[in-house]
Amino acid sequence: MLNKASVIILSMRVSELGEFGLINLIRSNITRYENFRHTPWQEVIVGIGDDAAAWQSDNHIQLATTDTLVQDIHFNLDVINWEELGWKALAVNLSDIAAMGGIPKFALLSLTLPGEVEVEDICKFINSTMHLARKFGVAIVGGNVAAAPNVIITVTIIGCSESEVLLKRSTASPGEQIAVTGYLGLSAAGLEMFKGNLILDPEISNILRRAHFKPMPKVKEGQILIKQGVKTAIDISDGLIADLDHICELSEVNAKMKIEQVPVHPVVIANFTNYEELALSGGEDYELLFTAGESTIARVKQALNCPVTVIGEITKEKLPARVTVVDSKGNIIPYKKSGWEHFKHGVPEAKFA
Amino acid sequence: MLNKASVIILSMRVSELGEFGLINLIRSNITRYENFRHTPWQEVIVGIGDDAAAWQSDNHIQLATTDTLVQDIHFNLDVINWEELGWKALAVNLSDIAAMGGIPKFALLSLTLPGEVEVEDICKFINSTMHLARKFGVAIVGGNVAAAPNVIITVTIIGCSESEVLLKRSTASPGEQIAVTGYLGLSAAGLEMFKGNLILDPEISNILRRAHFKPMPKVKEGQILIKQGVKTAIDISDGLIADLDHICELSEVNAKMKIEQVPVHPVVIANFTNYEELALSGGEDYELLFTAGESTIARVKQALNCPVTVIGEITKEKLPARVTVVDSKGNIIPYKKSGWEHFKHGVPEAKFA
Repeated sequence: MLNKASVIILSMRVSELGEFGLINLIRSNITRYENFRHTPWQEVIVGIGDDAAAWQSDNHIQLATTDTLVQDIHFNLDVINWEELGWKALAVNLSDIAAMGGIPKFALLSLTLPGEVEVEDICKFINSTMHLARKFGVAIVGGNVAAAPNVIITVTIIGCSESEVLLKRSTASPGEQIAVTGYLGLSAAGLEMFKGNLILDPEISNILRRAHFKPMPKVKEGQILIKQGVKTAIDISDGLIADLDHICELSEVNAKMKIEQVPVHPVVIANFTNYEELALSGGEDYELLFTAGESTIARVKQALNCPVTVIGEITKEKLPARVTVVDSKGNIIPYKKSGWEHFKHGVPEAKFA
Repeated sequence: MLNKASVIILSMRVSELGEFGLINLIRSNITRYENFRHTPWQEVIVGIGDDAAAWQSDNHIQLATTDTLVQDIHFNLDVINWEELGWKALAVNLSDIAAMGGIPKFALLSLTLPGEVEVEDICKFINSTMHLARKFGVAIVGGNVAAAPNVIITVTIIGCSESEVLLKRSTASPGEQIAVTGYLGLSAAGLEMFKGNLILDPEISNILRRAHFKPMPKVKEGQILIKQGVKTAIDISDGLIADLDHICELSEVNAKMKIEQVPVHPVVIANFTNYEELALSGGEDYELLFTAGESTIARVKQALNCPVTVIGEITKEKLPARVTVVDSKGNIIPYKKSGWEHFKHGVPEAKFA
């Protein structure tokens, strides 16, 4: 029998429930069936809720992830070109495999398009996708085409893990440091530049454009994190705070983040007054955010070829929110958690595996 | 350097190239890279062009397929309900695994929706998908949600094969019989009923509705075909003639089909004057169309619990088309090859794995 809460939810619309509410609803409806615990459910290691799904195969763990880019929601064809679109559609999925520490292997490409798209643009799209696929040793083995009023691209990647361990969202524990690869805010600054029609120095403009449209997924870096003993990670797609919040939610812990330690990209600091917001809430950096003990993080810094910055800690402290941002004196800084929840606000990234 | 033909193609639009032209273009752009023959390309057994992709894993062959349903192209929410939509989105993908003789195991579900969709409808959708998934032992392990102006559903299924052999499109040879499971035309008759607003006896109407919206993929049947020695099959999604043409194209053979032997469903014969057209060109039957030697077909008839009908033969004869339809006297019957090529005409199914 339905209880009162269920009835209220059922009478809502998706826009009232929001993206994460919708994901939770789908997850709870699906996991009811997991109780039957027959094959293949018993092989599942990571189900709905992480960057990729994982299951036990014969000799190793397999991974799968899917992500969709929708015209006028995730991209605007007046701004992005087809070469960039082909890159980004694959890159955001590679990043999800990276966030599990996996090895991407096979990809399926589902393209829905209006008939008036030019064949030359499709060639640019495919060749750019293949260029990135080759860089990471991925074979595009199939897919689907269909006519539709707008361009929608869904990529699925199937991969594996060399290790028995995966990077998960659910394994952070108090006392661990929180660290991030690379610099943040460039991609969001790129979006800001396009939305605000900002005229910037061409060199700066190119850096921002590339960061937003041609992100480089941290696939090797994810694999190195596992080798160095890291167990908890996520890729930064929704935004630093939102993604740290995903880790905290699934790990049932709180995080304290020191705003002055966040590695905002120097180009963002130099060109945008709201650089902190762009780095904390902008999203689509596709860097890796991870937690681990101090000695593990020290090893990671040695092993990786990119900057690794400690930005806070997982704590048992009672804090006002799952993710609390503080300044150098420990004063709490209020922040806007997001701007990118689908349905409620409507912007990038929205996945449950 | 581009030759003249390439330049002409590049200056076209997707609508001029058509669905199958687009698939060929994507395939040729992708397979250029296969020449590098590094991992994971060397593990690929079936790439773009069949019902599902296949590659060698540790101890068995793995399969993956993806298919997208687009609102107002593949379905109309004024007619289909969400429970039926959840079923069909998974069923069409299961059917592609069936057409390879595979075992479906894991599914990813990508949902793009307008915010005004009701939560109750999403629950109906998910529960119906799960109902079908459970029937075939499939675990839904992840996916994606995003806001969009129209409903678009992409399902990806990952499966495996118990056998070293797969059912492929490319292995038909002259002298083999052509056979089909079940009866044809019901699904297309269902679509005709909705499009023409036909008022039929409620029992008939229910049969047609179920055939069109809740097809039952022939997963077990595909596996039995392999066990009985069949090597060549496809599922009937584009339509009997179009799908037989896909087999002939990839196998580089011709087919002669005897129109009077086609097992048109009795309900279609009784209610539609164009019953032959519905069975030959309608599509979305999700029955299996296969070729094999006479003795193999005889064994298949014994092994399957559904009707198996021989409808023609693969031949070396010079014929006017790859697929030639004849009457009982051997006279050639002209037929309309299709009505369902995406972009050019715009209707169901459009996949390259």
